[in-house]
Amino acid sequence: MKLPTIPLPDSTAEAAARARQDTLTKPPGSLGRLEALSIQLAAITGKARPSVARKAVIVMVADHGVVLEGVSAYPAAVTQQMVRNFMRGGAAINVLARQAGARVTVVDIGVAAEFEAEPGILSRKIAPGTHNMARSPAMSRIQAETAVLEGIDVVQGEIAQGVDLLATGDMGIGNTTAAAAITAVITGSPIARVTGRGTGIDEAGLARKIKTIERALAVNKPIATDPLDVLSKVGGLEIAGLAGVMIGAAAKRVPVVIDGFISGAAALIAVGLAPEIRPYLIASHQSVEIGHRVVLEHLDLCPLIDLNLRLGEGTGAVLVFHLVEAAARILDEMATFAEAGVSDQS
Amino acid sequence: MKLPTIPLPDSTAEAAARARQDTLTKPPGSLGRLEALSIQLAAITGKARPSVARKAVIVMVADHGVVLEGVSAYPAAVTQQMVRNFMRGGAAINVLARQAGARVTVVDIGVAAEFEAEPGILSRKIAPGTHNMARSPAMSRIQAETAVLEGIDVVQGEIAQGVDLLATGDMGIGNTTAAAAITAVITGSPIARVTGRGTGIDEAGLARKIKTIERALAVNKPIATDPLDVLSKVGGLEIAGLAGVMIGAAAKRVPVVIDGFISGAAALIAVGLAPEIRPYLIASHQSVEIGHRVVLEHLDLCPLIDLNLRLGEGTGAVLVFHLVEAAARILDEMATFAEAGVSDQS
Repeated sequence: MKLPTIPLPDSTAEAAARARQDTLTKPPGSLGRLEALSIQLAAITGKARPSVARKAVIVMVADHGVVLEGVSAYPAAVTQQMVRNFMRGGAAINVLARQAGARVTVVDIGVAAEFEAEPGILSRKIAPGTHNMARSPAMSRIQAETAVLEGIDVVQGEIAQGVDLLATGDMGIGNTTAAAAITAVITGSPIARVTGRGTGIDEAGLARKIKTIERALAVNKPIATDPLDVLSKVGGLEIAGLAGVMIGAAAKRVPVVIDGFISGAAALIAVGLAPEIRPYLIASHQSVEIGHRVVLEHLDLCPLIDLNLRLGEGTGAVLVFHLVEAAARILDEMATFAEAGVSDQS
Repeated sequence: MKLPTIPLPDSTAEAAARARQDTLTKPPGSLGRLEALSIQLAAITGKARPSVARKAVIVMVADHGVVLEGVSAYPAAVTQQMVRNFMRGGAAINVLARQAGARVTVVDIGVAAEFEAEPGILSRKIAPGTHNMARSPAMSRIQAETAVLEGIDVVQGEIAQGVDLLATGDMGIGNTTAAAAITAVITGSPIARVTGRGTGIDEAGLARKIKTIERALAVNKPIATDPLDVLSKVGGLEIAGLAGVMIGAAAKRVPVVIDGFISGAAALIAVGLAPEIRPYLIASHQSVEIGHRVVLEHLDLCPLIDLNLRLGEGTGAVLVFHLVEAAARILDEMATFAEAGVSDQS
């Protein structure tokens, strides 16, 4: 699989940002993680005083054959209904993106319905949903690869329009089952430790979901060290697309804020395919989904907020845009001790 | 002391907001603390779909006689230098308030310097700093009371200009010593458990700071159950003013986002004087200052973010404006299941 080259983070810009932080009118280190974040942004972008004014969230949408096993609290039709909600601006991600001043790009990468061609949606459909992973591979290896490449292509289009900061989002009834399966395989964790209630299944539903993943792993025998194998056998098309988004963004030095559990599973795949993208990722929030903690630990990422979110769509990531932009603005706009005539530490 | 009447939170608006949350196109509860926050905003404002578009931060500034004991890493002159930095827009709080679209009102309630009359600063000076609490009461009881009333008056002026959401901020070299003393007395905690490094003192400085607070408590014998006694003996003028801000805001049903340790100490005083204000407070962040955790536990407040901040000025509170506004906008702007034609839980 031909992936773009990922540049190294820029250590010169990083050092310049670090040095500037210590000249600003505040006790050194007193803005904590905002300071660290500003230095990471400099390393990513190669600019000593980066701007992240232009923002976008890419929401990848797909259906999942595994919903036939009764793993979700909502009917599969909700996936396509929510696409229409996104297009009309009524979903949570629309509200938060409006507030953040971010574009929303919705990508149909595998929904089991056809949509009218509209500016609000990109059609990159690989298949009308995956197969039921409890009985066969979710998709072919070629489909998985194509979906990753579509993600890279989508992000290149986004960057061509002008963007300084990206978020990943997802929609797909059944996708926490795929994310849990990927997480179990790649991190080597017990299935029960990474499987949560998704949109809100009850105790019996959770037991069924765990059993379904057990069966999917037994049937497909995904190879933990081969990310494309895992992705094709127990993944999802939106997860594949989001992995591509992360790789494509890193290739162009654009920071990517990753959302919750689904985006986290995509990050496991992306980092598996291209380990050099890791420094380009910013973890937004700690999801309620129990597997998300395992994902973040595996990737050695520390989320910025923990607000008991579990919606997906990119909501946690877009909420955090404000903090990322605050970090950049602090670095760029604050006065130095010398400029302000303020005495430094005695 | 004559304080304004504090209305009860509005249970009708609260119930309406709670009911609406469950009709919005997301699994119930999936936006976690944002949902709870939107319901709190409804209860505070008395509006089922509150708006928090108009925002302001009130930064109270004062000097502290106790700096003579060597409790700070910075010279006392930094207090007045930072006021000038605020007026020129170069401080962290200016940057974050610009980003948030919030007004900054700087109040000289006790700085040891005179400032030109300018639109950027309100002069409400009670005294040019407090006395050294290690030797005598920081201020008289009448001064403490007057400073609280000035805070109420300032917030009434702010509300008259139109404001939906307030933050408290502080500046004053030496003020973590006062905040630690207040926290130790009111919560009954050991001084060493609530005293931190402030702007960044070393080990020897920290030991000196703890000894100074021990002496201040021994000399002044503040009465834990009398908030004005504690405030006058070991408090600060900005802490008194911020307590007034909280009381004045609650009286007018305006939510107040409280910043870190200094604002937290002010909240201990404010809730001591008027316990009914508690539901009007929103805790913004968990400060690095060790005493802040004790304050929040005592007030039973859970901060929204934890980014290792310890700057003050209202920076943590203004950062959190975005989350508070997100909560309000989610409640107001999201489509319902019925409006969007999305199937509810199966």
